[in-house]
Amino acid sequence: MFRLMLQQTLIKWMPIYPQDWEYKNIETKENFMTKKAFQDYYPDDLSHCYGCGRLNEQGLQIKSYWDGEESVCIHQPDSRYMAIPGMAYGGLIASLIDCHSTGTAAAAKYREENREMDTLPPIRFLTASLHVNYLLPTPINGPLEIRGKVKLVKGRKVVIESRLIASGQVCATGEVIAVQVPEALMPVTS
Amino acid sequence: MFRLMLQQTLIKWMPIYPQDWEYKNIETKENFMTKKAFQDYYPDDLSHCYGCGRLNEQGLQIKSYWDGEESVCIHQPDSRYMAIPGMAYGGLIASLIDCHSTGTAAAAKYREENREMDTLPPIRFLTASLHVNYLLPTPINGPLEIRGKVKLVKGRKVVIESRLIASGQVCATGEVIAVQVPEALMPVTS
Repeated sequence: MFRLMLQQTLIKWMPIYPQDWEYKNIETKENFMTKKAFQDYYPDDLSHCYGCGRLNEQGLQIKSYWDGEESVCIHQPDSRYMAIPGMAYGGLIASLIDCHSTGTAAAAKYREENREMDTLPPIRFLTASLHVNYLLPTPINGPLEIRGKVKLVKGRKVVIESRLIASGQVCATGEVIAVQVPEALMPVTS
Repeated sequence: MFRLMLQQTLIKWMPIYPQDWEYKNIETKENFMTKKAFQDYYPDDLSHCYGCGRLNEQGLQIKSYWDGEESVCIHQPDSRYMAIPGMAYGGLIASLIDCHSTGTAAAAKYREENREMDTLPPIRFLTASLHVNYLLPTPINGPLEIRGKVKLVKGRKVVIESRLIASGQVCATGEVIAVQVPEALMPVTS
């Protein structure tokens, strides 16, 4: 009832409601864990991000993978990241969408160049803009699934659309405009 | 040089660049600390948010105040919230803009109703949409200042524009569409 009423309240202001998106059950996390995540290819110097850096021990350390034409990240949030007990706060949702999208942008660019992600020079993206629509309160007691679609790859710019799913419902959607870090600013990698 | 090149790279994709915004030095944090922050008026049941809840001991506990027609929040980030060492990650910036904006929305609504923030029934807002433009890398070694402007108050909807300033430079801008929580869903407050 709480969720339904909030939905009715929020939906009025939503520019996009993803009714045409079908929720798709992904493989289990274990299937993905045999693969190397996008973030595992980031150079060490660029692996300290609180959202996605594998070297930030206090961070979220999200992991993103291709699942066909979509990218997927499954993340079990810590209960501290609540808005109210049991529900995720907006900043966590924004963080997950942001870092999953910049990871997807890098992976999409490697793919466009027909390169594996372990080839040099490394490709990394920064967020130019982030847009999140909050559709429903997002339960935090189970895993969250963030799914990205590559909307545009044009030069140094990549646009990623995403949706965040919890318990089978799309709770938020996002759009990230990501810009490739100029090679001259990338850390030197041997 | 790093900042300049990134600025040139990012600025190309920016729908809004706040060149018409003048950076204004605010009063010192100590001036504000004699006042009660917007978030200090939130009912206990709604004070657990990781971004702005005064009862979330692990959270950011941001504090927002009126400064004339603008609202202001000064926040010293913990170094863990880095993108790269010394620079804030995008999720922190999104969180600060989000929570500062919903706080400002509530304060604006009280003001519109000519009510003090300690009067009943309490007013709280949820984020319907969040848009952040990242203009410059945001240094994390000093305080961040988030300034909000009330763009619209219409019924249950409030729109807040904001900018995030570090070391005198606008590093990000934001727009939040916030929706008032229906009274029936608010916790009972005696």
